Amino acid sequence: MELLSLIRKKRAGGELSAAELEEFTAAVVDGSAPDYQLSALLMAICYEGLSYAETLALTRAFVASGEQLSWPEAQGPVVDKHSTGGVGDKVSLLLVPWLAAVGLVVPKMSGRGLGHTGGTIDKLASVPGFRVALSQGEIRAILADVGCVVVAQSAGLVPADKRLYALRDVTDTVDQLGLIAASVLSKKTAAGAEHIVLDVKCGSGAFFKDLARAREFAELALSLGRDLGRGVACVISNMHQPLGSAVGNALEVEEVLALLAGERDQPDLTELCQILGALLLTAAGRTVSMDEGQAMMEQALAGGAVRERFERWIAAQGGDLAAFRERHRDGYRRIDVRAVNGGYLRGMDAQRIGELARGLGAGRLTAADGIDAEVGILCRCKVGDAIEAEQSLAELVARAIDPRSDRDLAEEYVAALSFGAEPPEVKPVVLDVLLP
Amino acid sequence: MELLSLIRKKRAGGELSAAELEEFTAAVVDGSAPDYQLSALLMAICYEGLSYAETLALTRAFVASGEQLSWPEAQGPVVDKHSTGGVGDKVSLLLVPWLAAVGLVVPKMSGRGLGHTGGTIDKLASVPGFRVALSQGEIRAILADVGCVVVAQSAGLVPADKRLYALRDVTDTVDQLGLIAASVLSKKTAAGAEHIVLDVKCGSGAFFKDLARAREFAELALSLGRDLGRGVACVISNMHQPLGSAVGNALEVEEVLALLAGERDQPDLTELCQILGALLLTAAGRTVSMDEGQAMMEQALAGGAVRERFERWIAAQGGDLAAFRERHRDGYRRIDVRAVNGGYLRGMDAQRIGELARGLGAGRLTAADGIDAEVGILCRCKVGDAIEAEQSLAELVARAIDPRSDRDLAEEYVAALSFGAEPPEVKPVVLDVLLP
Repeated sequence: MELLSLIRKKRAGGELSAAELEEFTAAVVDGSAPDYQLSALLMAICYEGLSYAETLALTRAFVASGEQLSWPEAQGPVVDKHSTGGVGDKVSLLLVPWLAAVGLVVPKMSGRGLGHTGGTIDKLASVPGFRVALSQGEIRAILADVGCVVVAQSAGLVPADKRLYALRDVTDTVDQLGLIAASVLSKKTAAGAEHIVLDVKCGSGAFFKDLARAREFAELALSLGRDLGRGVACVISNMHQPLGSAVGNALEVEEVLALLAGERDQPDLTELCQILGALLLTAAGRTVSMDEGQAMMEQALAGGAVRERFERWIAAQGGDLAAFRERHRDGYRRIDVRAVNGGYLRGMDAQRIGELARGLGAGRLTAADGIDAEVGILCRCKVGDAIEAEQSLAELVARAIDPRSDRDLAEEYVAALSFGAEPPEVKPVVLDVLLP
Repeated sequence: MELLSLIRKKRAGGELSAAELEEFTAAVVDGSAPDYQLSALLMAICYEGLSYAETLALTRAFVASGEQLSWPEAQGPVVDKHSTGGVGDKVSLLLVPWLAAVGLVVPKMSGRGLGHTGGTIDKLASVPGFRVALSQGEIRAILADVGCVVVAQSAGLVPADKRLYALRDVTDTVDQLGLIAASVLSKKTAAGAEHIVLDVKCGSGAFFKDLARAREFAELALSLGRDLGRGVACVISNMHQPLGSAVGNALEVEEVLALLAGERDQPDLTELCQILGALLLTAAGRTVSMDEGQAMMEQALAGGAVRERFERWIAAQGGDLAAFRERHRDGYRRIDVRAVNGGYLRGMDAQRIGELARGLGAGRLTAADGIDAEVGILCRCKVGDAIEAEQSLAELVARAIDPRSDRDLAEEYVAALSFGAEPPEVKPVVLDVLLP
């Protein structure tokens, strides 16, 4: 494999052939392609772009580069969900058992996150005993029994993407739509999903800052889905403020537990999950319309089926929710952030709130970093809320040894908010829906 | 050093500060910058460019990154010459002793070439006994005695460039003017040259294919020279056909020996050397005009001073010219390439002739490749020559074990030529001269 000739071709604005992209992918997997040539090619791709034909060929080569799972024994349509990542994005924690509760089968493979908090796997790992590394036999047994399972992505699944993603992350070559789409869709396809829903986040706390670019990505994903023979639907969802209230790992699990127990309502989170679920139900032919799908989702939540499924699922993977609730939390301090003046909360800088959570220890900057499951933020007010002076805006959970003062941390949170005398226009959580 | 932030800044079209370029250079030298981030940054630089301020700062950081030589004991102006590389470019073999013969001091550090033939060091290494690795003491002793020396560039001289150049070569990030200029001028500056002449080759067999780009590079080098306090002059020379007649390592040494012995005339080679020398003589204040400089150069050649200096120099570095002339050359075959029809030789594809020489074994594709000193090409006709049918066009020296037939190799050479009934316009060897 003469990788240099591919770099030359791309730099000269050429289109790489399917055969070249297959050879390239093989060289990534067998290690014969050195990192420095890969990162040079990735950078050239960021500048020159990838045509649709290149993106499709790359996705196919990625799928073929490793294991390909299938679930012939599944007792329902096999579905999966992917999020492009946002602040407070605990959708999978809630949606995975919810989908199982309405009869869909969800064998979810999840990567460790490099975001403001950990990924779904990191969040689940805050439950004592929860096992994220399961054998194929265990995965299939839990699926048959519970209908859903969430495990760390096997190294054998799209190994080409695993290596390239790690490189992209440290060479500022993440933001190329074709590379992102090939990465996401190859993993979902290799993991055997028949129907896939993408939660494309859009806003200050998301990768896609504006709607046009989010839609461009969604359209690309839909086209790839058609050509790969998988049904892909997309939701473009609002990430101009955190989703729900918790931003942290254990804190987000607690939020989902409280929601399932009916102790706390998070309308943006439940609405988003209902629409994502309705899309999958409709795409899989389980319901004839989105309205019917949403009604089925709503009913499952209201009737307690989601809570029951959540508990069975966590237990099936070894998680001990009682121990989670009673866990030891010494070594942390809780900081109550209060409003100085009254007014309307007009904006929350989700990006900044995410950075604050990461700064507290909730997220990673590099794959080698550790995560503190306990730290994070509970947003007590959302955009549009009328605030009184001295009202609690948020609670921060910081390590006792964090060298910054409570006051400094509280000020950092407040700096991410904007207030005004007039109520702001509040955007819906779902900005757009794209059917397959 | 957070290299990722530099990649981000450059990708966003930002200008790197002198402090950032110094930190970057330090991270290249101390090894803390990984290859994959360096190649990503180099590729981003190829797309975004380097401003003049960035180029100057990078050159200065390169100079400061390692040893800096000075020659306080030199008995004349310390000068150096650099070529951007061409086919049959044996200028240094002839020019170095020629400059010494007219009173200039030439401590030349040379890298191993990655071209169609080896570099100057490889060519000299074809002389039995010639030593290219000398101690500082030996270098200074030979300089004092002969006035010139050519050694392999020490690893301590601009170590940052050494590492970056190796990476650029394998990631298609060579062709960025600022990176090229910083590489060339930092090495010449660190090696202690007071006056530098650049032979900027232009044409099909050169890096610069057109005059505008060659001139752009020359102007940049002149500006850098002024800001670095070194006199830089440039010649833009014709590389639309090979220089002189030999393309190979030992063959080029033989050509220079024949020229010095008065047995063979190579007007393009001698003219180019005379102008390069005149530029240095004038820049160093040894002559008041280019005409006077050229006259001084001409006289040295005609009077035998260059030949005498050449022989003393080769001997001082341990080379045995008698052994070179009588060396064993079994295992090679000589192929006489003859014209089928008569006509004028209108064009020679220097690039293609260079590739043929490299294919015979004269040059390297990667730094790890070996070089065969004996193989190569002797061009017997140059552009503008009137050719008769059956006349010898060239002689190829191939390994006896080369699997290609004599006929195939001869046809490859002929394919690089173009003929016609009318004599072509013959361009001069020197296309332009830029004074400091």
